[in-house]
This record gives sequence, C-alpha cells and structure tokens, in this order.
Amino acid sequence: MAEQKKMVEEITSMEEDFAKWYTDVVKKAELIEYTGVKGCMAIRPYGYAIWENIQSRLDSMFKALGHENVCMPMFIPESLLNKEKEHVAGFAPEVAWVTYGGNEKLEERLCVRPTSETLFCEHYKAIVRSYRDLPKLYNQWVSVVRWEKTTRPFLRSREFLWQEGHTIHATAEEAREETVRMLDVYADFCENDLAMPVIKGVKTEKERFAGAEDTYTVEALMHDGKALQSATSHYFGDGFARAFDIQFTDKDNTLKYPFQTSWGSTTRLIGAVIMTHGDDNGLVLPPHIAPTQVIVVPVAAHKAGVTEKAQEVTARLGKICRVKIDTTDNSPGWKFAQYEMKGVPLRLEIGPKDIEKNQCVLVRRDNREKAFVSLDALETEVPKLLDAVQQGLYARALERRERMTYTAATLDELLDVAEHKPGFIKAMWCGDRACEDKLKELAGVTSRCIPFEQEHVADTCVCCGRPAEKMLYWGKAY
Amino acid sequence: MAEQKKMVEEITSMEEDFAKWYTDVVKKAELIEYTGVKGCMAIRPYGYAIWENIQSRLDSMFKALGHENVCMPMFIPESLLNKEKEHVAGFAPEVAWVTYGGNEKLEERLCVRPTSETLFCEHYKAIVRSYRDLPKLYNQWVSVVRWEKTTRPFLRSREFLWQEGHTIHATAEEAREETVRMLDVYADFCENDLAMPVIKGVKTEKERFAGAEDTYTVEALMHDGKALQSATSHYFGDGFARAFDIQFTDKDNTLKYPFQTSWGSTTRLIGAVIMTHGDDNGLVLPPHIAPTQVIVVPVAAHKAGVTEKAQEVTARLGKICRVKIDTTDNSPGWKFAQYEMKGVPLRLEIGPKDIEKNQCVLVRRDNREKAFVSLDALETEVPKLLDAVQQGLYARALERRERMTYTAATLDELLDVAEHKPGFIKAMWCGDRACEDKLKELAGVTSRCIPFEQEHVADTCVCCGRPAEKMLYWGKAY
Repeated sequence: MAEQKKMVEEITSMEEDFAKWYTDVVKKAELIEYTGVKGCMAIRPYGYAIWENIQSRLDSMFKALGHENVCMPMFIPESLLNKEKEHVAGFAPEVAWVTYGGNEKLEERLCVRPTSETLFCEHYKAIVRSYRDLPKLYNQWVSVVRWEKTTRPFLRSREFLWQEGHTIHATAEEAREETVRMLDVYADFCENDLAMPVIKGVKTEKERFAGAEDTYTVEALMHDGKALQSATSHYFGDGFARAFDIQFTDKDNTLKYPFQTSWGSTTRLIGAVIMTHGDDNGLVLPPHIAPTQVIVVPVAAHKAGVTEKAQEVTARLGKICRVKIDTTDNSPGWKFAQYEMKGVPLRLEIGPKDIEKNQCVLVRRDNREKAFVSLDALETEVPKLLDAVQQGLYARALERRERMTYTAATLDELLDVAEHKPGFIKAMWCGDRACEDKLKELAGVTSRCIPFEQEHVADTCVCCGRPAEKMLYWGKAY
Repeated sequence: MAEQKKMVEEITSMEEDFAKWYTDVVKKAELIEYTGVKGCMAIRPYGYAIWENIQSRLDSMFKALGHENVCMPMFIPESLLNKEKEHVAGFAPEVAWVTYGGNEKLEERLCVRPTSETLFCEHYKAIVRSYRDLPKLYNQWVSVVRWEKTTRPFLRSREFLWQEGHTIHATAEEAREETVRMLDVYADFCENDLAMPVIKGVKTEKERFAGAEDTYTVEALMHDGKALQSATSHYFGDGFARAFDIQFTDKDNTLKYPFQTSWGSTTRLIGAVIMTHGDDNGLVLPPHIAPTQVIVVPVAAHKAGVTEKAQEVTARLGKICRVKIDTTDNSPGWKFAQYEMKGVPLRLEIGPKDIEKNQCVLVRRDNREKAFVSLDALETEVPKLLDAVQQGLYARALERRERMTYTAATLDELLDVAEHKPGFIKAMWCGDRACEDKLKELAGVTSRCIPFEQEHVADTCVCCGRPAEKMLYWGKAY
C-alpha cells in the first residue's frame, strides 16, 4: 500500500534531440508499446482514446455530408491489384503478401490492402448500373499495411489505422467538388479540433498519389520545422473506371464511365498533435480530442472531507466534460508531473484551505496559468478555460508557423534557408519536375504543395531562373 | 425521371430452402456483396450500419464496466503463435501466412491474427510489473482471419469483424468473475437489444476454446431449429501467463503468475438476427439495432401538401428516433415491399385523407398490425410501438425456442427427435467425450453447452446409459 511509485520518468529535451524527445513522449505518456514485429505498434488505452475522439468527430463530419460507412475485405488478389498500372507500380513494392492459407499454398497471392481503391472499384462494378445508383459516398475505418523500411510510431508504421473515403459520381464536376469539399473537412478538423493550422493546396505531379489526376493535401509544420502531410484527397477522373470497366446508364440512356475520388487520414494525426503542441514536459493535448480534459487532484487528501469534496466536484464536472480524479496514494507533486506529461489540458487542485474558501485552483497545461475559481462558478469557468486552451494552442502554433515560414527568390537564398532555418520555404516554380529533383538533391527539400492561396514572391523559378507563375511551399518532411 | 424501378426482387421462401432464403436476404436487403476472395465479403452501408449499432451498444456496456479499448497489430510472428501449445494446435491449421514484404522474403513467417491472445500476452509481459498494474481490462474492435473451407456470409467467413476482450488479473477468483460477468453482458445484449433469447452455459472439454480452462457460451436457436453459438467467454487460468512468462510482484512482495480471460462476439450476430427474426418477406430488425426505425412513405405524393406534411412528420420524429423518408418516384406499393424486405420496424404512411383527419397510419413489420394515430400523439405513440415491436420479437422468438426444445431420456428418443424435430434437445450426459463423439456420429448433434440452469430430465446418460448428473443442450449447429 505504502509503496511509492517511482517519480515520473524523464523526457529528453526537444532541443537536445527532437527524435528522441518524440519517442520518449509516445512511450512514457503510454500511447504505444513496441511489439515483436518491426513497425507494428500496440496502441495503448490512452493513445487509442485519442484516436477514438478523432474518429468520432471526423465520422460525424463525414456522415453530416451524406457519407456512409462500409467495410471491404483486407485482402486484394494480385490480379485485381494489377488492373490499374500506375496504381500497382506505386504500391506493389511495399505490400505484404499472403501466400499460404493454413497448410495449403494459395493459387493466387493476396496482398494485405495498402489502400483499397481496387476493392472499391470491384465493388462499384458489381453494384452500379444506372445514374440512379450514383453518387455512392462511402468511407471505411480499417487498418492498412505498407512494408516501409524505416518506421516511427504513428508517423510511419507498417500497419496503421485510418479512414479511407471512396466516392463515385456521374460527372467530373461533382467528383472534383467532392475532392475539394473533403479537403476542407480535413482542414476544418485540423484547425478547429487539433488546433493545428494547415496549408491547403495541390501536390505537384511528382508527389501525386499513384493513379490520381490530382492530389490535394493539408500540410502542417511541426515544432522542429519539418512539414507533415496531414491528410490527402484525390481526384481520379475516370481512370479507375476505365481500368475496371465500371459503366452506368445515364439519363440520356447512354453508357458512361463514372468519376471517382478517394481521401484519407490516419493515426499519423496523433503524431502531428504530439509534434505541434508537445513540450519538454511531454504531451499537450487540445481539449477537443483529449481523453481526459480535466484531472482532479485532491491535496492533503488525508484531511477530513477533502477526498469527498474532490469527488463531488468530479461528479459535477462529469456532466459537462471528460473528467477524472486521481485518488491514489502518490504525492500531489508526482501527480502534477504525471498529468502534465500526459498532456491533460486542465488540472484542478483542491485542498483544505480551498474548501474553506469555497474555491479550487485550475492550472492550464499550455501556459501553466493558475486561476482561483469559486466552486459555485465551476460549470461556467471550466468550459471557458478549456476553450481558452484550445484557442491558445492554435494561436501559438499559428504564430510559430508564421515565424518559421521563409521566402526565397533565388537558389542561393533557398539553400541558405534550407541549411540554417528549419521551416517552410515559399518560392516560385516553373512547373518542371527537374527543378523539384534538383532542389531535393541540393537542399534536401521537397515540394509540399501549390497552395490555394497564391502569392507572387518573385518572377522566376527559384531553381532554374526561368519565368514562373506558381508559388510552392517547400520543406523537409516526415 | 419517369423510369420505374423494377419490383422488389423475390426471396426464396424459408420453407422451400432455408439456406437459399438466407443468402437471398443478405444479398437483396443489401447487407453484403460477394468479392473476388472466397469467404471475404464487402459489408454494404445497410449491413455496416447494423454493425455500428451493435458495436456502439456493446462498447458502452464494456466501458461502463471499466474496460478500455486498445489496438494490437494484425500480424503474429510464427514463433509467438507457437508459445502456447494447445492454442497453436487449435489455430495454426487455419491461418493465413504472410511470407513476403514487398519483394523480400521475410525471415520469419507472420500469420494474420485469427485471435489475439498471443499478442496480448506479449503486451502484458511488457507492461505488467506489479499488482498495482492489475487488472488490465482491455478490448479491441478489429477483423480477424480464419481460413475456413466452407463459408457463408456473416456465419462463417474467412475474414470477419469482431471485438475481443482480453483481461489479466491478480487472482483466479477475479478472472473467473470477469469471465462470467462478460457472459452476462452478452446474454443481456442478445436478449434486450437483439430480442434473441439465449441459453447460458459452459462448453464441454471437447468444444472448449484452444488454450482455455473453461469456455462459457450463449447459445441461440435459429428459425430452422439449428443452434448458433452467439458469443463466448474464456477463462485461461494462468496457462498463458506461464507459457509467456508473465509475472508480477504481489503485495506480499513475491512473484506470481497472473490469471487471464478473453471474450468475443462477431458480425455473426447479424446472421443470428436474420435467422431469428426474418420471414418470407425478408429481414425483420429489432428496433434497438435497426439503422432506420421508422420509414415515412407519402401516399399520393403528387397531391398538394402531402410531401411537405410527410417531411414535417419526419423532422419531428428525427428528434426521438432513427427515421427516414422515401420521396422517390417509386410507387407506394413498391416502397412498402422494399422496406419490409429491409426489415424496417415501423412504416408510417400519410396521404391526403390522413392529413384531413390529422392522422397517419403506422404499420408494424413484425405482425403487420395497422394503427391510425393522431399526428398530435406521434411523439408518444411511435416510441410505444417501437417498444412493442422489440418486445414482440423477443416473445415470438422465445415461444418458438420453447416449442422447439425437446427432452430425450434414451438414445432412441434422441435419435428420433434429431431426425424429425429440428431444435434443441435436453438430455443427460455422463461426462465422457466418447458419448459426444458417438452422438455426433449417430445423430449429427453436438453438445451446445452445460446450461447454468440445470434440470434433471433422466437418471442416466442419454448415450451410454451410465448414471449421469449433468444435463446438456444438444443440437445441430451453424
């Protein structure tokens, strides 16, 4: 009983080693545990609860726009994967192959889905006949497998959880609208729920999804100045429909090929939250997705009435937010450090003196501000403070991104920024892939996107000096 | 626009061919579509929405008892699967093996999880140190793969969706309590939400889960008199802990092996609902899990004000239940048949004459009873009727199960019942596996369970005639 838990484990500082800081946080905040299979993690209750909150919010946004959930198989026969040439070329080198069922060798190899365009196409071919069957706005929440060489929890794992939307439409216009509409959903979610500002834009041909005519992306900037592609939305035109021979009878009684989209977001978003808001004390979670929004810590709990009062407060808050109380025999100091590490947005401390004054102490995780709040005002003050944390995190992340976004008009400028200043680089581009390849080679940066919000930062391509009209975001990326 | 949809497709009658009736229903009610991989189905929106309702209800029951969701990897290295001998013997013959990652042959084969005891053991070994870490009450919602020879949608598929709970405890007593407690959760859910009466009991050694000391089950009786194992809960003792060398320091400062359980339910429950409540017109869904509880059908919708009134009614009902309106140009007759086939519990018809009288017609799916209900009373009458359907379905299923449950005191009696009367057979058993094998061979029945509610239906074993104290449920099973 009297056994004292060891003090909260130390986390490497960001400054010292950002990569080590990151893995310390995911491990010590108990988000994941490693397993015997490289790149496949066990997501622990605290990590999974964050995912459940992400999932629940996104799912209701999808459904509000008329999307329906389905579930396709996890296996794709090799012949099905091979039907769309660009698509298979992009994915075949990194899939896991099932070759035996029990003791029998399979007649045809099956890959574990790396993404499910081919399965949805097979399904749409089976169920779409007429314009009356369109559109189909489907989504699924599953896990997929990509046999990556280098892996990191949440950011690049061999198996990861995600949602993949797959829609099919009678016209190209409608499919294009869907593609952009879903990008907007992701951007709203990132900004309003994850408190993470994003740049919306379109990928260059080089960075496009295998088989897509256009790939849209939301790009965020992490604490260390690296970019993170946070979600993508793809417009396929009728390429997949032609490859899979999906046709429908339109209102004019002629056979036509339909148009398709897909869009996805993954557990990578948890990595994005960690690297956007975290600090040297550990995780910092935006209230909208925090499994516990308020942690109640009784102080001097051995004194009469303290635990009871703390429990009463917890019960009251339980009606308006996600609250927990810690009544273990660890010291208050240990608890403060523990829940800071776990990124709980608000800590409520309550001891005998507070009770005398009919008050409690509320401490914000993001900036450590303390407020003494009357117990009578809890139901109004706690939501206000949670909102302040949510907004405060967004403002801080936005300020940092702006501070870490640079402009380069010439190659020398770009090389200088890329070498010395982590962050986004805005620069003009002529449209030639050779310039992307060259900047990757010389500066280690890739094109993140052609943003919807264009600026004219120079007249010529930052790389080759030819006239250029498009501004790109460049950066080192996860 | 004027194109008329073809009439609702016909369903084979149950009487004529029950198996064909079943596959007609799952296909034509648009629950699933077949795919190119045998035994792997595409679950369509209507089927998946039923699963989401099942999932949401069960998940909140689990969480109310303190369980937390996690997510383990889908791959198990062969050496990990091999650690518990009975377990691997039970599962290895029916797993799918991944042997290649991209173009490289793997050093060790990985199986796609058929169940995750071994992964949870590996995880518990990594995170459990002290009695303070116990119990862990974990659950996950994932899909698993078993390479079955014979497959049927929902009932026996190669990939299926499920939840698997895995818990670990300091004492055997606590683990045993958990095993039974979770069986009770399943029984409550089957009876109260699926309107499906179940027999609770324990499996004989022969029918036990591979690696378990005891397997508890809830057994339901389908329309055709076959039994369906609807969910199971396993007590493992410390067998897995010993095989995986999981130990914890107890309060007395000595190292001990913890005790484990697992429990699961699957998309098979959807098959159970179909075969418990369905009829020759198609699906019949209990309101608690029906994606649409009320379908509103405007009659003579071309008349002024009808559609508007129907939409107004739909909006009102939307606040208290899951309601949809069908405003397509299909005929009311087609719509009636369509939503009967889809098993929507209540149909609301409203036409010009109804509007004149300030009323509508409500038709129950289970018994086709019609009620004329004042529009002023909708908010009280609709929930009452939904409740009546839910209760009515349960009562009908219970009555049928009782009618189809027989008693056999001698082998001749049992053979006669097994040949002529589909249903459960209650009979005494000496405890010898040879008698189970013999009854399987002679009568085609297997032991379903030793029910918690015992009856003394004879003095001797129905098979060998030796003295017997245990009564078993026997039956042909899915």
